[in-house]
Amino acid sequence: MKTLVKNGKIVSDSAIFCGDILIENGTVAAVGTDLFRRMNLSESAFDQVIDAAGRYVLPGAVDVHTHMDLDVGFARAVDDFYDGTVAAACGGTTTIVDHMAFGPKNCSLWHQVEEYHRLADGKAVIDYGFHGVFQHVHEETLQEMRDIADREGITSFKVYLTYDYRLEDEDLFRVLRAAAEDGIVTAAHCENHGVIQYLRKYYVQNGCTQPKYHPLSRPALAEAETVDRFLKLARMAGEAPVYIVHLSTGEGLAEVRKARESHQKGVGVETCTQYLTLTDAMYDDPQEGLKAIMSPPLRKKEDNEALWQGVADGSIDVVATDHCPFHFHAGRAEKQYGAADFTRCPNGAPGVQERLNVMFSEGYMKGRITLPELVKLCCANPSRLYGLYPKKGCLIPGSDADLVIIDPAKEHVFTAADIKGASDYTCYEGMKLHGDIDLVMQRGKVIVKDHQFLGKRGDGRYLKREKSILAQ
Amino acid sequence: MKTLVKNGKIVSDSAIFCGDILIENGTVAAVGTDLFRRMNLSESAFDQVIDAAGRYVLPGAVDVHTHMDLDVGFARAVDDFYDGTVAAACGGTTTIVDHMAFGPKNCSLWHQVEEYHRLADGKAVIDYGFHGVFQHVHEETLQEMRDIADREGITSFKVYLTYDYRLEDEDLFRVLRAAAEDGIVTAAHCENHGVIQYLRKYYVQNGCTQPKYHPLSRPALAEAETVDRFLKLARMAGEAPVYIVHLSTGEGLAEVRKARESHQKGVGVETCTQYLTLTDAMYDDPQEGLKAIMSPPLRKKEDNEALWQGVADGSIDVVATDHCPFHFHAGRAEKQYGAADFTRCPNGAPGVQERLNVMFSEGYMKGRITLPELVKLCCANPSRLYGLYPKKGCLIPGSDADLVIIDPAKEHVFTAADIKGASDYTCYEGMKLHGDIDLVMQRGKVIVKDHQFLGKRGDGRYLKREKSILAQ
Amino acid sequence: MKTLVKNGKIVSDSAIFCGDILIENGTVAAVGTDLFRRMNLSESAFDQVIDAAGRYVLPGAVDVHTHMDLDVGFARAVDDFYDGTVAAACGGTTTIVDHMAFGPKNCSLWHQVEEYHRLADGKAVIDYGFHGVFQHVHEETLQEMRDIADREGITSFKVYLTYDYRLEDEDLFRVLRAAAEDGIVTAAHCENHGVIQYLRKYYVQNGCTQPKYHPLSRPALAEAETVDRFLKLARMAGEAPVYIVHLSTGEGLAEVRKARESHQKGVGVETCTQYLTLTDAMYDDPQEGLKAIMSPPLRKKEDNEALWQGVADGSIDVVATDHCPFHFHAGRAEKQYGAADFTRCPNGAPGVQERLNVMFSEGYMKGRITLPELVKLCCANPSRLYGLYPKKGCLIPGSDADLVIIDPAKEHVFTAADIKGASDYTCYEGMKLHGDIDLVMQRGKVIVKDHQFLGKRGDGRYLKREKSILAQ
Amino acid sequence: MKTLVKNGKIVSDSAIFCGDILIENGTVAAVGTDLFRRMNLSESAFDQVIDAAGRYVLPGAVDVHTHMDLDVGFARAVDDFYDGTVAAACGGTTTIVDHMAFGPKNCSLWHQVEEYHRLADGKAVIDYGFHGVFQHVHEETLQEMRDIADREGITSFKVYLTYDYRLEDEDLFRVLRAAAEDGIVTAAHCENHGVIQYLRKYYVQNGCTQPKYHPLSRPALAEAETVDRFLKLARMAGEAPVYIVHLSTGEGLAEVRKARESHQKGVGVETCTQYLTLTDAMYDDPQEGLKAIMSPPLRKKEDNEALWQGVADGSIDVVATDHCPFHFHAGRAEKQYGAADFTRCPNGAPGVQERLNVMFSEGYMKGRITLPELVKLCCANPSRLYGLYPKKGCLIPGSDADLVIIDPAKEHVFTAADIKGASDYTCYEGMKLHGDIDLVMQRGKVIVKDHQFLGKRGDGRYLKREKSILAQ
Repeated sequence: MKTLVKNGKIVSDSAIFCGDILIENGTVAAVGTDLFRRMNLSESAFDQVIDAAGRYVLPGAVDVHTHMDLDVGFARAVDDFYDGTVAAACGGTTTIVDHMAFGPKNCSLWHQVEEYHRLADGKAVIDYGFHGVFQHVHEETLQEMRDIADREGITSFKVYLTYDYRLEDEDLFRVLRAAAEDGIVTAAHCENHGVIQYLRKYYVQNGCTQPKYHPLSRPALAEAETVDRFLKLARMAGEAPVYIVHLSTGEGLAEVRKARESHQKGVGVETCTQYLTLTDAMYDDPQEGLKAIMSPPLRKKEDNEALWQGVADGSIDVVATDHCPFHFHAGRAEKQYGAADFTRCPNGAPGVQERLNVMFSEGYMKGRITLPELVKLCCANPSRLYGLYPKKGCLIPGSDADLVIIDPAKEHVFTAADIKGASDYTCYEGMKLHGDIDLVMQRGKVIVKDHQFLGKRGDGRYLKREKSILAQ
Repeated sequence: MKTLVKNGKIVSDSAIFCGDILIENGTVAAVGTDLFRRMNLSESAFDQVIDAAGRYVLPGAVDVHTHMDLDVGFARAVDDFYDGTVAAACGGTTTIVDHMAFGPKNCSLWHQVEEYHRLADGKAVIDYGFHGVFQHVHEETLQEMRDIADREGITSFKVYLTYDYRLEDEDLFRVLRAAAEDGIVTAAHCENHGVIQYLRKYYVQNGCTQPKYHPLSRPALAEAETVDRFLKLARMAGEAPVYIVHLSTGEGLAEVRKARESHQKGVGVETCTQYLTLTDAMYDDPQEGLKAIMSPPLRKKEDNEALWQGVADGSIDVVATDHCPFHFHAGRAEKQYGAADFTRCPNGAPGVQERLNVMFSEGYMKGRITLPELVKLCCANPSRLYGLYPKKGCLIPGSDADLVIIDPAKEHVFTAADIKGASDYTCYEGMKLHGDIDLVMQRGKVIVKDHQFLGKRGDGRYLKREKSILAQ
Repeated sequence: MKTLVKNGKIVSDSAIFCGDILIENGTVAAVGTDLFRRMNLSESAFDQVIDAAGRYVLPGAVDVHTHMDLDVGFARAVDDFYDGTVAAACGGTTTIVDHMAFGPKNCSLWHQVEEYHRLADGKAVIDYGFHGVFQHVHEETLQEMRDIADREGITSFKVYLTYDYRLEDEDLFRVLRAAAEDGIVTAAHCENHGVIQYLRKYYVQNGCTQPKYHPLSRPALAEAETVDRFLKLARMAGEAPVYIVHLSTGEGLAEVRKARESHQKGVGVETCTQYLTLTDAMYDDPQEGLKAIMSPPLRKKEDNEALWQGVADGSIDVVATDHCPFHFHAGRAEKQYGAADFTRCPNGAPGVQERLNVMFSEGYMKGRITLPELVKLCCANPSRLYGLYPKKGCLIPGSDADLVIIDPAKEHVFTAADIKGASDYTCYEGMKLHGDIDLVMQRGKVIVKDHQFLGKRGDGRYLKREKSILAQ
Repeated sequence: MKTLVKNGKIVSDSAIFCGDILIENGTVAAVGTDLFRRMNLSESAFDQVIDAAGRYVLPGAVDVHTHMDLDVGFARAVDDFYDGTVAAACGGTTTIVDHMAFGPKNCSLWHQVEEYHRLADGKAVIDYGFHGVFQHVHEETLQEMRDIADREGITSFKVYLTYDYRLEDEDLFRVLRAAAEDGIVTAAHCENHGVIQYLRKYYVQNGCTQPKYHPLSRPALAEAETVDRFLKLARMAGEAPVYIVHLSTGEGLAEVRKARESHQKGVGVETCTQYLTLTDAMYDDPQEGLKAIMSPPLRKKEDNEALWQGVADGSIDVVATDHCPFHFHAGRAEKQYGAADFTRCPNGAPGVQERLNVMFSEGYMKGRITLPELVKLCCANPSRLYGLYPKKGCLIPGSDADLVIIDPAKEHVFTAADIKGASDYTCYEGMKLHGDIDLVMQRGKVIVKDHQFLGKRGDGRYLKREKSILAQ
C-alpha cells in the first residue's frame, strides 16, 4: 500500500515547508519535494494520491486527557470508546491516552487495566493508550505499577489530590518516590480538597446551589496551592517526573514557573482548550451553566490571557481536553442532576472533537501562536511527554502516517449539530471557526473526509508507551 | 512606691537616648532627662534609685513561644511554670505567652484553659499569657474559641500541621474562616506531615536511627510547602491573621516574602534563637545530638544566614525560643529515650534563659542587627503581635515597668552551670557571650540582680490579651 | 522657659499613648502621664500649658525634598526661604532639608553652599539643612564633598541622571565610590535621559505640545530603568548608601524591591504626596494641566495603589514633596511659559504645606496607613535617613520640641485660598481634608495656631547633619 | 548531481531518527528510510553515496558571531575570510554571520557593507552573511539601515554600549524605534561603559596591569545593568526585536528572565562556548592570561553553571563564538601588546573551529543537553533568529544540504596543532573531546573529511537574509 500526499504545506513543531509525504504500509517512508519525479513514477504507481495544495498538513493530533466511557458511580460518560474516538477522529485527533476510572475499593491496579482493555479493544477507531490511576497505595500497589509499566507500556499514573479517592500526602509521596525510581510519570489533578470540601458544604448549606457557585467553591488559589505542594513533594522525592493536568489559572502557572526557575527538572504541564477560550460567565445562566460544570471550573478572562501567554512562551507543554461528556437533554440527561444543586452534577464536558479546530482558529488564526507552536502543543509534546514520540505527533520518516489536512480558507460556525460523538451539546456553541479539517488519515488510511467518518469500528490499536522525556 | 532608673542608655525599637525612667506603682510614669532636678527632689524621695550609667536599658523581653510543664504523654517538660519563669527572668524575659499542650481527646477548649491556670497560677514569677490550641474542630469548638478570646483574652490559637493531632486542611480552613471573622490569630507549626511521616518510617525501617537522621527526615522543603499552604489557605479564608512559629529555613522565608509581595496582609513570622545560631552539625555525635532533637530540626549555615537577613530586613517579626526542656542525664533523662531511635526522643530543648543574651551577643555585638532591631524582635513585636502592646515590650509612659539592664562591657562563657531552671544542659554550651544582664525589673520590682533571682513564686500575673495588630 | 503639653494622644513611629510632654528650653525634657501631679507643681509654674485633650500630638514633620527660591535659569521658584517655610510651618512641617540649585558652570561645591546660606539664613522660619548637588565631577569636587560633609554637616549630595546637568555613568560611579568611603548619601533623580530627550523632541516636532504629552514623554519604564542602574552602580561601588527621590511608579518600586531582596544594603526611597494621591488625568485640560507639570509626571491610578502598598509595607521610607512652586496667574505666571509647548514650562508645583494634612486625611483617615506609620513616613524616617534623628522627627527626651497637634474631628475643603506661601494655586484644589492642624510648635515655641503663622522671620536655624543610618 | 547520505542517525532540533538523506543539486530533496529500495535504484545511480551508519548527522552549524579580518585600528584579527572559514568548516560550521568592524568616522553604513564584500567575496569557503553596525546615528543613517536591509538582506544591526564607539541612550533609542518599525533586529554588546571606564583607569593608575585585573574591571553587574537597560529601552521603543550577544553572567541571565516573565516579546539571547566552559582562573598566569583577554571576560564557575542551566531550559537561544583571534607568539604577536598593561591587549580569541565539538563533548556527552538541544543552539536557532531558516540550520526538504557527521565513539585531545585557521593558540588547549567530526558537507559537496579541508577558496556564497523570527 503506497500513498502520496503531495504539495501540502507540511507543518512540524519547528518549521513549515512545501512538499510531499510518501507513505508505505501506514508509515511515513519519506518526506521530500517533487517525489514523483525523483522516483520516476507516475501517479498510477500509487494506491492513493492526495493533493494537499494550498492547505496545511499537520501530524494527527494527540489528546492525552480523555475519559471515554467513564464510570463515576452515579453516572457514566456518554461517549464510549467507539463514539468518543469517532468524535476525536472527526476533529483531527488520531491518538488518545485515556485516563482510567477508579475500580472497586482496594482492587489491584491490574483490575482497571483489564477493564479498560475490555472497554476499548475492538471499539476504538483511533490508536489509544491508557494512564493508570491510584486510588489507594497498598503494599502491592507500587509493584503493580512497575509491572504494568513494563508489561503494558503504561508509563504514567494519575493521582487525584481532591475528590473522595484522593491520595493524602504520605501516600502521594510514597508513589512519587517509587515512580521517580522507575521513571514513571505521576500526573495529578491539583486542587486543595479541604478548601473545596468546606466551600461546597458551605454553599449548599446556605442555599447557594446554582452553577454560579461552582467556580466560587473552587478558588484559583486552591489550584495554585496544590500545584506548589505537588511540585515540592516531587522534588523532595528526588525530582520525580510529574505532569499537571488541566491547569486553569494564572496563579497555578506562576507556581510552575517558580519551580522551574529554581531549576526543578521533570515538570510537564497541560491546560485544556476550554481554559484558554471560555470563561466563568458561562455559569451565569442556571440551565446553560450546567453544561460547563467541570473541575477545575472555567475561570476569568485574565486566566485565559495568562494561559495563552504560557502556551506561547513554552511554560505550558500540552493542550488537551479532559473530554468527559454527559447528556444535557438526551437520554438520562445526567447534567440535569445538578439542576437543583450544582454539587450533584457529574463533572465533565465534551471537547475532544473541538480542540484542534478551536486551537487553529483561536490560537493560530488570531495570531496568539504560530502553526509550529500549535503542532507542538497538540501533537508533538503530548506524544513526547507520554512516550509515543516519534511514532506519534510528528511526520518524520518512520512515524505512523497519521495526519490532518486543514484548509485555512474555509470557515464555519460550530454547533451541537456538528458533534460526531454521543454528546448532545458543545461548550463552543456558535463559535465561528476559521479553518476547517478536510481530511484525516490514520496509519495511511483516510478515516475522515469532508466531515464524514470513513473508518472502521475497532481499527484503533492499543499503544504500549515508552518512558516519558520527563523521566530523562 | 517610686523608683528612678537613671542615666541609662534607654533603647526603644526606634531609638536610643540617655536619660531616666520614673516608675510609680509598677508603671512607667515618665521618661526624661535629668528628672531629679526637674522634679526638685533628692534621691531620698525615691524608694529606689538605680544607676544605669554606661549600660543599656531595654524593655523586659517577651517570649511568645514557650512550653512550660508540657505534657507530651510519654514525657513532661522539666521546667514547670516556676522553674521555667525563673530561668526566663534570669535571662531578661519578663513576659511569656505559653503554648498549651493537648488535652484529652475531644475535650472542650476550656479544658486546657482551666488546666493551664492550674499549672501556672501561683507559680509563675513573671507575667504570662496562653495561646489556645486546636486538636480537633467540632461544632462547638469554634464558639469556644470566640468565648475564650472574649472572656480570657486568649486571642491566638495554635494549630499543628504535623504530628498526630494535626489539623487536616478542611478543619484548618474552618478555623481560619472563623478566626478571620473574629480577629483571632491562628499560629501554626508548618511542616508537611505526610513527607515527614514517610521519611521517619523509612529511616527507622532501614536502621537509620541516629540523631543525624532527624534533620534528614524533615527536609527544608517540607517546611516551605506547609508555609505556602498555610498562607494560601489564610488568604482564601479572607486574609485571616496568621503567625508562623519557629521558621527555620531560607526556603520557608522565601514563601513568606512571596506572599507579602503579592500583598497578603496579616502575616506574622517567628524564628527562634537556635535557628539563627546553631546548625545541624550538632547531630553528628550520637549522644550530643540528642540534646538538639527538636522540630523543626537545626538547619544549615545557609539557613542561619538567610534568617539573619530576614530579621535584619524585617521579614521576620519575632525571635522566640520554643523553650521545652527535657533532661539529658538528670531525673528520668527523657532525651535518652531517643538513644536507640531518634523518633522516640521527646522533641524540645531549653532556651528561654539564653535568648536575649545570645541575641545581644551574636546579633548586636557582631553587627548583624542594631539595638533597636533587637528590641523590636525580642520585646516590641512579640508584644504587638500578641495584643500586649504597649503594656509590655516597650518603656513608654503607662507601660509596665519591666526592664533589663545590660552591660555591654562584660562577657562570659555560657555553660549548663549557668542554667537557672530545671534543665541540665544548654544547647549553647561554651558560647562566649559579649554583654551581660545586670538587673531585671518587673513592674518596678527588681527580680534579678547579679544573676541571682530575687523575685517570689507566684508573683507573675495572668495577662488577658487584646487583639493582635495582625488582625487590624 | 517651661512648657507642658498635656493630655494629648502622643504618636510616635511605634506607638500611641495618652500623656504629657514637658518642654524646657525648647527641648523635650520628659514624656509621661500626669506630670503635674508627679512634679508637685501647679499650672502657674509653667510658662505655657497647652491642653491637647482629644487630639493627636505628632512630632513636627520633616520635609527632606524642597526647592525654596530655586533658580532654574529662565525662572525662579516663587517661594523664597521665608514664604516657603511659613507655608511649611502652617502645614505642620518644622524642618526642611532643601535641595540646592546648580551654580555657575564648573563652580566649586562651596559656591552653592555659600549661596544657600545667603538665601536661607535670616529668612527661614523653621529649621533647615541643605543637600549638596553635583553638576560636574572635577578632581577637586570629591574633596570638596568630604570637606562640606565634615564642616557643614551636609552629609548628602544629589545627582541628576536626567536634565542637562546630569551625571554620566562614569562620573556617577566616581561619586558613588567616594561617597561610599565617607558614608555620604548620594540622592538621585532617576529617569532615563536619552529616552526622555528623544520623546520630548519627537512630540514637539510632531506638534504634540499640550500638557497631556508631558507624561507620555516620560514613560514609567524610563524611571524603572534608571532606578535599576543607579542601584546596581551603587552596589558595584561597594554598597554606597543611596536615596531615590520622588519615586513615582510601580515599576520603579519593583526594582527597589528586587535590589533589597538580593540583599543590597543602604537603599532609601522617597515618594511624594502627589504620586500617592493625584493622577495624570490632571493633564487632560490644556490650561489646568500646566499646574501639574513636574518631573516625574503624575502617573496612573495603579501607580498610586502600588505606592500606597509600598508606604504601608515599608518598601518606601519617606513621603516628601519636591515643593517647587511657580505662579500660574500671578506675577510672571511662569507656568504659562508652557502654554504653547509643555517643554517650556518650568517643572515643579507647591506641596510643602499640603503634605501632612493630605497624608493624615488620605492615608490615615482612609485606613491606608496607621498613625505610627504616618509619623514614620513624614517625621522619623526622613530624619533618620538624613542624620537628624533623634533631634528631629520624634518626641523623646532630648529631642527638639517640634510638634503638631491635629484634631481628627475637624474637616475642611482645601483651596488655593488656604495657601500661606507665595504660590497662587494648589494641586489639591477642592480636596476634602479630614483632620486639621490646630497648633504647631518649634523648639517649644508656638509658631502656628488656628492656621495663623505666629513665628518670626529668621527664627529657623541651620542644621548640621550627622551621617545617615543608610551609611551604617 | 545526486547524493545519498544513508543509514545515519539524523538529528533535528526536535527528534532523532535513522534514515537517509537524498540530495540533489546541493539541496535536501528528501529524507526517508530505505530510500534506495523505494526509488528502485542501485548505488551506481548516485554520484556520491555516504554511509553514516553508527554516526550522527547534524545540520551544518551556524555561527552568527564571528569577526573575520576585524580591523581594530591598532591590530587586525589574524583570520581573514579564507583562513577563518576554513577553520569554521573543519569545525562543522557551514554558515557564519560576521559582525562588521567600524568604518571611518561618520561614514555611511554602506561603506562597511562594501568593504565587507571586498573582504569576504572570493575568499570565504562557506556561506556567509553580515550584521551591520552603528557607530553613530546621523539623519541619514536610519534610512541607510532600511535600504541595506531591503537590498542586501542585512536584517540585523549591532550596537556597542561600551567602547569608544558606543551609542548613548538617546541614539540607541532612536535606532530601536526605527528598527522596531522595520522589523530589523538590534544586537547589542551589553556592558556598562562608565563603570568599566572608571575601573580600567583606576587599576592602571594603581599599577594593577596584569590580566587578572581584566575581569575585575568588568564586573558581572556591569553586564546585568546594561542588559536590563537595553531590554527596557527596547520595550519602550515598541517591543523592538533585540538580541543580546555573548551573555556571560548569571546576573545578566536573570535580567533576561525577568523581562520575559513580564511578557516582553522579541528577545533573543546568545552565549558563547567559552562562557559555558572556561573560567577566570585562566587569568591567573600573567602570560597565559593574555590568551583569554576578551570582553566580556571569562567568569566564575557559578556563571558557567547558570548559563548551562539557561541553554538547557531555553532561556538562552544561541551558542556562538565571538571568534576574533590574534597571535600570541607568531607574526606580530598582538596579544603581547597587553603584556605590560592588560588594557593594551586586543580583545578577542579564536573559537569558531572548537565550538561544535566542545559543545558536543561538554554539553551532550556530559549529559547537560540533548542532541536536539545541541542542534537548536548551534544550528536551528541562530538560523531562525537571523532570517536563514529553513535554508540553513536544518535538514528538511528544500534546505541547503549542509551537514556534519559526528562519530560519538572517537575522542581526542585538542591542542593548538589542530587549529586550521591562522591562530597560533586555542583556549581549549588540552581539553579531551568526546566525539569527533568525520565529514562536513556544504550544499551537497564534501568540504571536510578526516580533518582535511577539501573545499575551495571562494566557494562560499553571500546570504541575503530574511527578517528574524524575533520581528514577528
